[in-house]
Amino acid sequence: MAKENKKEDLEALRHSTEHILTQAMLKLYPGIKMAMGPAIENGFYFDFQYDDPSTDSASPTSTSSVFALSKRSASKGSPQAGSRQAHKISEEDFPKIEAEMKKIIKENLPFRKEEMEVSEAKKLFTDNPYKQEWLNEIEARGEKATLYWTDQAFVDLCAGPHVKSTGEIKAFKLLSIAGAYWRGDEKNKMLVRLYGTAFDSQKDLDEYLHQLEEAKKRDHRKIAQEQELFFIDEEFGKGLPLWLPKGAILRQLIMDFALKSYFAKGYQLVATPHIANKILWERSGHWNFYRGSMYSPMQIDEEEFVIKPMNCPGHVKIYNFKLRSYRDLPLKFTEMGTVYRYEKSGELSGLTRVRGFTQDDAHIFCTPEQLQDILIETIGLTRYILGTFGFKDVKISLSVRDPNNKDKYLGSDETWQLAEKALEEALKKEKLSFERFEGEATFYGPKIDVLVRDAIGRKHQLSTIQVDFNFPQKFDMNYIDKNGQKQRPIMIHRALLGSLERFIGVLIEHCAGAFPFWLSPEQIWVIPISQDHEKYARKVNETLQEKGFRSFLKNESGTINKKIREGEIGRIPYLLVVGDKEIKSKSVAVRERGKKKVTVLKLDEFINKAEKENTQK
Amino acid sequence: MAKENKKEDLEALRHSTEHILTQAMLKLYPGIKMAMGPAIENGFYFDFQYDDPSTDSASPTSTSSVFALSKRSASKGSPQAGSRQAHKISEEDFPKIEAEMKKIIKENLPFRKEEMEVSEAKKLFTDNPYKQEWLNEIEARGEKATLYWTDQAFVDLCAGPHVKSTGEIKAFKLLSIAGAYWRGDEKNKMLVRLYGTAFDSQKDLDEYLHQLEEAKKRDHRKIAQEQELFFIDEEFGKGLPLWLPKGAILRQLIMDFALKSYFAKGYQLVATPHIANKILWERSGHWNFYRGSMYSPMQIDEEEFVIKPMNCPGHVKIYNFKLRSYRDLPLKFTEMGTVYRYEKSGELSGLTRVRGFTQDDAHIFCTPEQLQDILIETIGLTRYILGTFGFKDVKISLSVRDPNNKDKYLGSDETWQLAEKALEEALKKEKLSFERFEGEATFYGPKIDVLVRDAIGRKHQLSTIQVDFNFPQKFDMNYIDKNGQKQRPIMIHRALLGSLERFIGVLIEHCAGAFPFWLSPEQIWVIPISQDHEKYARKVNETLQEKGFRSFLKNESGTINKKIREGEIGRIPYLLVVGDKEIKSKSVAVRERGKKKVTVLKLDEFINKAEKENTQK
Repeated sequence: MAKENKKEDLEALRHSTEHILTQAMLKLYPGIKMAMGPAIENGFYFDFQYDDPSTDSASPTSTSSVFALSKRSASKGSPQAGSRQAHKISEEDFPKIEAEMKKIIKENLPFRKEEMEVSEAKKLFTDNPYKQEWLNEIEARGEKATLYWTDQAFVDLCAGPHVKSTGEIKAFKLLSIAGAYWRGDEKNKMLVRLYGTAFDSQKDLDEYLHQLEEAKKRDHRKIAQEQELFFIDEEFGKGLPLWLPKGAILRQLIMDFALKSYFAKGYQLVATPHIANKILWERSGHWNFYRGSMYSPMQIDEEEFVIKPMNCPGHVKIYNFKLRSYRDLPLKFTEMGTVYRYEKSGELSGLTRVRGFTQDDAHIFCTPEQLQDILIETIGLTRYILGTFGFKDVKISLSVRDPNNKDKYLGSDETWQLAEKALEEALKKEKLSFERFEGEATFYGPKIDVLVRDAIGRKHQLSTIQVDFNFPQKFDMNYIDKNGQKQRPIMIHRALLGSLERFIGVLIEHCAGAFPFWLSPEQIWVIPISQDHEKYARKVNETLQEKGFRSFLKNESGTINKKIREGEIGRIPYLLVVGDKEIKSKSVAVRERGKKKVTVLKLDEFINKAEKENTQK
Repeated sequence: MAKENKKEDLEALRHSTEHILTQAMLKLYPGIKMAMGPAIENGFYFDFQYDDPSTDSASPTSTSSVFALSKRSASKGSPQAGSRQAHKISEEDFPKIEAEMKKIIKENLPFRKEEMEVSEAKKLFTDNPYKQEWLNEIEARGEKATLYWTDQAFVDLCAGPHVKSTGEIKAFKLLSIAGAYWRGDEKNKMLVRLYGTAFDSQKDLDEYLHQLEEAKKRDHRKIAQEQELFFIDEEFGKGLPLWLPKGAILRQLIMDFALKSYFAKGYQLVATPHIANKILWERSGHWNFYRGSMYSPMQIDEEEFVIKPMNCPGHVKIYNFKLRSYRDLPLKFTEMGTVYRYEKSGELSGLTRVRGFTQDDAHIFCTPEQLQDILIETIGLTRYILGTFGFKDVKISLSVRDPNNKDKYLGSDETWQLAEKALEEALKKEKLSFERFEGEATFYGPKIDVLVRDAIGRKHQLSTIQVDFNFPQKFDMNYIDKNGQKQRPIMIHRALLGSLERFIGVLIEHCAGAFPFWLSPEQIWVIPISQDHEKYARKVNETLQEKGFRSFLKNESGTINKKIREGEIGRIPYLLVVGDKEIKSKSVAVRERGKKKVTVLKLDEFINKAEKENTQK
């Protein structure tokens, strides 16, 4: 609870800082029209219209814009995406704006809430079409308008809450500037967006700014470009990453490792198509509950097919291929299943927000008696898989139904209680602490989500384990019990890496592109000092390749130092330089990533060392 | 040329036999209305309407039908798919019909061609709406009608050619009966279809009937059902196979083997999404030339996306990721790419005709100087891959442009000549005989197709190697040559297994479900004679699993003989039975698939033998 309070406090703090920013901006740039300005995760933003005085003031729903931000750059949705030269306010103005804000903070003006009739409020914002639009909507709902005053100096339409007075703001910073469409719709006018943040203390702010700096260096889009892992081609499709050779191998190694781990726990491989008859999704309930994330159907003859947003129905069909006996259970079907889900173009980002991704998906079908053990095994497997990639610090959330909103969910009360209890008990038996979130379950069942903390302290949701009593019912799934009676199996959906794409995005940033040896697309470079040493270098390289290492001979023209520098930038785990000395002693001069010292090892010694590192992961 | 003539002769023979069948049917069942009756590969068929006298005669485009063949069973398109009870003529009537045909053959009636005005011909078929429909179409084209008489006894609308007289038919047989929609369209009336065949000699006919019998036993749909490899679920979608665990492993093993072989030749793995912006397909030319095989677009925001029918554009984008140098070439990108193409529902069949399949796809980008060597390497790789699966007997066809129909193809004369020459030269250098087919090239380039002959002599087209000068132009692909000049690379499309689905269908029938050891989803069963021997059996099984074998302990209740029988039906390569004797001597009693003799081997000896078999393939 304390944590929740703190989060709300921070939100009020940040939202209050945004009011101060707006007040400062109105003073410095009297022509601006404020549009909106919410607190967001880690900060706040402020959207406003700032027209060149020489053009007409346009309505908020017009596409005309005096800012020469192209639709393309704006739609990237990144704070850095806006063009800085195209409008008059730029990051260079931040010191001036921050100084103005500091004045307001120093004055310690009180925040004051006021409710009034919409008609009254409209008079306060006569020349602001954005506020008028908000107010029209409030009016249509038959509500009163809520406003917040900063003393007498500033007023905005706002639901609050706020801090008591401007003096409470101890630490804030403006971060970046970008373009953004009014209400996120490309058909609307392009506005200017200022991003900023505020914290309780200068220390917290400094920590956050350091983390931002670190995150920028580790940005997986930047590293992927440098290391040639993947790219997104706008003509091919937004949110649809194309995997370059090095990225494709990395992805394959992760999939192979996951599958091998699952096979060891009795999972069986299956494979299902990427399209399926819409009827199936109607039957599963997705067409009603999940349509917003699904793509529009394709017409095939008289039928409609959709590209799958999830693999479940195919696995259910495979279960139903024949009548199952209790002796067959548990059945665990796994597939590296590529699914396609709609995301708004403005929300797409590198690998972490995409429109198509591959899940390390599996569905487990078991008896009620097996449920608890299966959940315990699955949680253990999750920790093993995540731990192998260096994610040892996990946070677990248990999402259950909103008991006051039962009609939002499929399935009976009884089944929901049984499922929620099983998950909770499994977590308790595993002695894992967890947070319980009411109303966060999926429409078909309760779930466990696993968040990991990365190397710079950010949290990412990766794994999910979901109990589902509804699918078995909808698809009339059965097994024959010991007494020859038909029974419903319990179904568990689980993806431990989650989305391969998202996982790789997080992993790249976690290790800052320095993948563990076993995962490195290029594990070893063999670099001959001169042409005289090329024959030996080639032999070393071939020996390493025969041993199964991803080793590459760097014999193209260029100096040794340039090659070593390239290898360091590419985060190659081992650079082996060979010259006269190494040829004579059948050895290699080893530069290990991140270590200054060069060690000369016999080739056999190096192979032993590398093999050990490969298998230990 | 001799072979081509023979094929045409057989067609005339079979088409003539069909006329004889129709004549016989009209005599035996005066109520029938003949619709159509072509010669097809390996035989002929005859479609006709045979209404119950109690119902009205319907028009050919009406969906009403007196035959109780459901749409579902008819759409399977297999000769066996029709319901036999539902209409009056069944396979039981074949002897009677064949006897009537033999009478006509014995009479040795001459075939005679006649041309006449359509208006005249219409009078000959006044009560036959099918013939009237044909005749209307001939009339619309402004052509005359061609008819063939069998003496005075029978006449049909027919372009011929035919044999001289009915006496030339030496060997024929009626094969099966099924339902078929008029002109293959489900909206039309359901007709009855009789399948038959004819050969030059009784010996040829007997051989063919034996092959049919063998093929029936080897039917991959039957074997897949028995061995639980895959199935097609009508609700999920026609032509979309779902891979069961054993089939999925088989498929994975084949993919792994192929990829490993390609990596050894310098291919690089890539991965591309299953959907792409329609713009890409417009640019590639597929939207114009290939739309009939593509599914309808999905709307995403303001753009249209299509599910990919091929992987080329994604690989081209990966090539274009950065500026390439001649030093980078050849680049070979490979992907197990799942593509989706429209097939008419009536043409779908098991794994051999599907609506979604995975290609062992690759695209090679090279300089003109490299083209010949690349083609030679690719042909060699094709023979290695196919040979590993036991397909040693290959036939090669070279498909080139129809020089009289140049506007059907993309690209310049010059590039076509260059491409065709390169393929031809490569085949000659490899000393491979091939047939050259004009007009069989794809719209974007000439190609080599490789056909294999299976264990019962049937030919299947598997591999394809296509040269393409057009894609590089459409997507402005370049490399910098030695002189610093921009040049166009040459692109080669190649799939050696072709479609994984089709390949596995052919492979199942080729080996009649007895997969080679390295490919068997279940390689070994360990069977304890009684409960007393279970502990030892478990240890043997675990040892084998640790060695990487797909070994299974069969300790469920049931007699030894029953388990051995099941293992034989499942074509398990090795059944290891263990009892007192085996425990004492640390051995296993080995039943090798297809061999009568049981051999007792020390466990180590067996492991050695099996490991050898695994690696030798």
